[in-house]
Amino acid sequence: MPAYSTNMRLKLPILALIVQVLIIVLYGLFVVYDDGKSDHKDNHTSESHDSQPLALYPMFQDVHVMIFIGFGFLMTFLKRYGFSSVGINLLLAALGLQWGLLMQNFWHMSDGIIKVSINRMINADFSTATVLISFGAVLGKTSPVQLLIMTLLEITIFSLNEHVVVEKLEASDVGASMTIHAFGAYFGLSVARMLYRPGLRNGHDNDGSVYHSDLFAMIGTVFLWMFWPSFNSAIAETKQEQLMAVTNTYFSLAACALAAYATSSLVEEKGRLDMVHIQNATLAGGVAVGTCADMSIGPFGAMVIGVIAGIISTVGFKFLTPVFASKLGIQDTCGVHNLHGMPGILGGLAGIVATALGRKHNASPDKQAAALACSLGFALVGGAITGLVMKLPFWGQPPDQNCFDDSVYWEVPEEDEENGESLTHADHSKSKTEA
Amino acid sequence: MPAYSTNMRLKLPILALIVQVLIIVLYGLFVVYDDGKSDHKDNHTSESHDSQPLALYPMFQDVHVMIFIGFGFLMTFLKRYGFSSVGINLLLAALGLQWGLLMQNFWHMSDGIIKVSINRMINADFSTATVLISFGAVLGKTSPVQLLIMTLLEITIFSLNEHVVVEKLEASDVGASMTIHAFGAYFGLSVARMLYRPGLRNGHDNDGSVYHSDLFAMIGTVFLWMFWPSFNSAIAETKQEQLMAVTNTYFSLAACALAAYATSSLVEEKGRLDMVHIQNATLAGGVAVGTCADMSIGPFGAMVIGVIAGIISTVGFKFLTPVFASKLGIQDTCGVHNLHGMPGILGGLAGIVATALGRKHNASPDKQAAALACSLGFALVGGAITGLVMKLPFWGQPPDQNCFDDSVYWEVPEEDEENGESLTHADHSKSKTEA
Amino acid sequence: MPAYSTNMRLKLPILALIVQVLIIVLYGLFVVYDDGKSDHKDNHTSESHDSQPLALYPMFQDVHVMIFIGFGFLMTFLKRYGFSSVGINLLLAALGLQWGLLMQNFWHMSDGIIKVSINRMINADFSTATVLISFGAVLGKTSPVQLLIMTLLEITIFSLNEHVVVEKLEASDVGASMTIHAFGAYFGLSVARMLYRPGLRNGHDNDGSVYHSDLFAMIGTVFLWMFWPSFNSAIAETKQEQLMAVTNTYFSLAACALAAYATSSLVEEKGRLDMVHIQNATLAGGVAVGTCADMSIGPFGAMVIGVIAGIISTVGFKFLTPVFASKLGIQDTCGVHNLHGMPGILGGLAGIVATALGRKHNASPDKQAAALACSLGFALVGGAITGLVMKLPFWGQPPDQNCFDDSVYWEVPEEDEENGESLTHADHSKSKTEA
Repeated sequence: MPAYSTNMRLKLPILALIVQVLIIVLYGLFVVYDDGKSDHKDNHTSESHDSQPLALYPMFQDVHVMIFIGFGFLMTFLKRYGFSSVGINLLLAALGLQWGLLMQNFWHMSDGIIKVSINRMINADFSTATVLISFGAVLGKTSPVQLLIMTLLEITIFSLNEHVVVEKLEASDVGASMTIHAFGAYFGLSVARMLYRPGLRNGHDNDGSVYHSDLFAMIGTVFLWMFWPSFNSAIAETKQEQLMAVTNTYFSLAACALAAYATSSLVEEKGRLDMVHIQNATLAGGVAVGTCADMSIGPFGAMVIGVIAGIISTVGFKFLTPVFASKLGIQDTCGVHNLHGMPGILGGLAGIVATALGRKHNASPDKQAAALACSLGFALVGGAITGLVMKLPFWGQPPDQNCFDDSVYWEVPEEDEENGESLTHADHSKSKTEA
Repeated sequence: MPAYSTNMRLKLPILALIVQVLIIVLYGLFVVYDDGKSDHKDNHTSESHDSQPLALYPMFQDVHVMIFIGFGFLMTFLKRYGFSSVGINLLLAALGLQWGLLMQNFWHMSDGIIKVSINRMINADFSTATVLISFGAVLGKTSPVQLLIMTLLEITIFSLNEHVVVEKLEASDVGASMTIHAFGAYFGLSVARMLYRPGLRNGHDNDGSVYHSDLFAMIGTVFLWMFWPSFNSAIAETKQEQLMAVTNTYFSLAACALAAYATSSLVEEKGRLDMVHIQNATLAGGVAVGTCADMSIGPFGAMVIGVIAGIISTVGFKFLTPVFASKLGIQDTCGVHNLHGMPGILGGLAGIVATALGRKHNASPDKQAAALACSLGFALVGGAITGLVMKLPFWGQPPDQNCFDDSVYWEVPEEDEENGESLTHADHSKSKTEA
Repeated sequence: MPAYSTNMRLKLPILALIVQVLIIVLYGLFVVYDDGKSDHKDNHTSESHDSQPLALYPMFQDVHVMIFIGFGFLMTFLKRYGFSSVGINLLLAALGLQWGLLMQNFWHMSDGIIKVSINRMINADFSTATVLISFGAVLGKTSPVQLLIMTLLEITIFSLNEHVVVEKLEASDVGASMTIHAFGAYFGLSVARMLYRPGLRNGHDNDGSVYHSDLFAMIGTVFLWMFWPSFNSAIAETKQEQLMAVTNTYFSLAACALAAYATSSLVEEKGRLDMVHIQNATLAGGVAVGTCADMSIGPFGAMVIGVIAGIISTVGFKFLTPVFASKLGIQDTCGVHNLHGMPGILGGLAGIVATALGRKHNASPDKQAAALACSLGFALVGGAITGLVMKLPFWGQPPDQNCFDDSVYWEVPEEDEENGESLTHADHSKSKTEA
């Protein structure tokens, strides 16, 4: 492993510092404070937000918690990869929000400047969500350097797709089922396909959880579950639509949770619940209700979407993920296809149905369908290209035996590193002798 | 255990799905979005909330965190029951909030419909709190199916009591010391009495904590402690009363924390602190100041209440809980009598005193006393009936030896399941041979 | 150890109760609710806050989370000191906020009373932050009684310094780089110098982390990181300055995170990341941008400050902390010099530069420089005096071998106490025989 690590020795710091310096220069040239005078090209900022520049701040913080605690801890379920899960999550999101703010608003500059409002900070956080979703697909099998490259490329492509969907196709996607969840998932699956590891066909000792790592993951799950109403409503255009989005998401998630528990128990041989399902499928209702969160589908409609999402997500974890790995060469560590992929498509389809039923003013099923297809297309092609770039040997992809192991990239407390689990002091001295 | 599990195989999913479908039908018939036009029968919604439909949203999210993170993680102190603590907590609360919104507003329908406002979502979250408190009394000794039954029955009875207390008796209970905390505690104790297990008289190996499970529990404690001012003030009628409720709760909790630490050290033989006290008794001040949170008792009065609550709660854990188990046949796993029961009654009494002293306009000690008696009566009788229903063999109550053990209801990571604690890889192979 | 514990038996409860009773009496005499009628001596309360008394409540809660979850869990990295880290943190902060509110507003009483507004509750929380920072310097080496004494003295001295800096020197320090971070750090280092333990020169077995304790610490890190914009903006005078402070802190932290990761990898021999750096140095950008958070330094300027802070903080952990311990006799357990000390001074210097460049109306570099010198002076002298008081044998300072060990002050679950780490059941019986 020394050779491998030495290899990484300078690449991570040099890449991170160069990118950070570049971003600082770009911010010096283009980014200024929001002075409250709205540039009218930003169609998300309603008038009320201008007079109260911090009205959205509590929702921004909820989204912030989802990005950094939610996604970060959700991935700590792996027994030996918790440092990377929450640590690299922080690294990628910290880079992503800086890059995302540039990429997203590059299209909306007035007089060559970008004004930073809370609304745009929320959108910047959103852009990082795509990367964190894709990170879940390749978790444990990629180096930090590869992931920094993925962050830059994915957010660039995401911003392009978002621009097409929102500005050109004029589709509605307030909770971003299509542009974030489906996009992030299929982008990540496409990358995972490119980085397929035949050597991991039969699994890996560290590709699993222990008791307390599953509890750490539940911190992520529960914060995501609670704050999802903020995610889906933060950028709604009017307060009434915002309330509607909160309400729809609240009920969709509650119904989804029951469906996920029921399905998890149903598909397990002995009727037991599976932590993987509970950690993930309980959230599928938040994903699936995203596109039509601000449409008047009724609490009833939101709950139906939630139940369907909870069922297909759980069934996906049980039956699809193994097939993806064995037949399609897609090793999806966190099962993002089940949490973000299928529920994201379900959200897109629900949006088509809801607009066809006239549940949203100024929205049409044609545009919604085009937006869904567009997002999937950008994701699959963009992910494939990004995967090829990430495959270049230069970025230091870890060998199979070092996958799912923090000690490749982190100083791990000694006693843990040696044994994979915490030891008694008595055992400790013994194992030192043996080693 | 296979026989037992098979028994459960279909009951949990079938019950959960039937209830969810029933709820969806009821929501389709009765529940609509809030359109901002207040129906005047809802006496909690002040005018200012109507013009700003999301004004209460940050407080709603604080309460949400208390319900799902606070209660969920507080119960993870058990060494082998963390999955159930945080997982079943999520299941029950997700069901409870859907059911609670129906039950609570069944009394307030105008034109046969229920409008979902943030205020009502907060109240729906509140209704689940009663169930989660009672859950604490029977933690580790009940099946998920039994708990779903308890959720439906308890919230129904809670809503009836709340209707009587608020609408008929016109009592004041802004932070719900009586209607949530005392009610939930004595309901749960009544259930626990019905489900008394003589076989656990001498304790159970898994009815205890390990080092890191106590730290997980502190996540719950601290979030409850921090956000309790939101719990006690969320549904206050005016902004000035809301500020008063925040202030009273803030100081009551701070004073309570010091009293709990002092008492914990005092009652332990060697002067050490006990995690059980710190995890729970530090919160008693929030419970006890609930009823008079919006009364002008002064920061001084709030602190006095907090100190008394911290002392009686700690003393209860040390001296009462063992007596309850040995003499009264009440095995109160989390000690909810000490955290919610006695402090809830203290809160009710404080409300009687405060109204007698004229600290709240339009409130009388007679009505407050009636409300306290009414809540205790509904709790004890309702809990006893619910306990009898839960005792029906059909619901699959776990045998004594399977109590406090996640592996009955959950797929537990293999190495953990075998040994009750995490293992070194070396030990792991050895224990496999032995097994 | 019995002798030692018996020694403590009555001191902690008696001291805590006496102080709490004293505080209650003082609150009874001086503290009343905020009635919305601003006393004009409080220069932080702008008019808009008076008409909306709870406008700052969401930011207050963010700060609350930083104090109780952020600081508390950040210090759980020690393998055997998690109970004390999060538990004593709660005790000190609960006392500190009550004491802080008195001390800070003693200077601003009108008609002999103190009105409790949300703004003042935020400031009371702030005052506890100084104590929690200093706690980090002496973590594991002081008794709860010593720390209660430190809390009372440090907050008194802090309030005096704050009064001089804000009212007399009229310096600007919205995010309190100087008055909280630099003050708290150098106060704590000064105390640590007084309490120097030659017996710990060669380290201590328990002065380190294990895998899951590092993950618990990340809960603290990430919540601090996310909510720091609230800390730096909460008491800004106008909404526009508040937005500016949020924006500056958001970008400073993002840039700082990348710099900390890059530097951590750069300074480690094999290019690996060090959890100590990630847990701490990623936050240095929040500290360093504090003083000029409400100055128009531009996102560009904020990022430059963040990058410098991330680099010096990481370098400090790697190279300075060992030197402090070996050459200066300052054993800084959490490395607060690197997270709060140097970045705090950097923040003060940045404020001098920014005001010299005219980035804030009504602020001058002279006053800023005087404020920085004043804060450092009060911290070093106040810390030295406090350290001498804490050294009195009466307070029960733990002997060297009992440092970094919860079991001195806490009932620790039996199996853990014996072995320092969780055991298998099989091992458990064995080790009992051996012991």
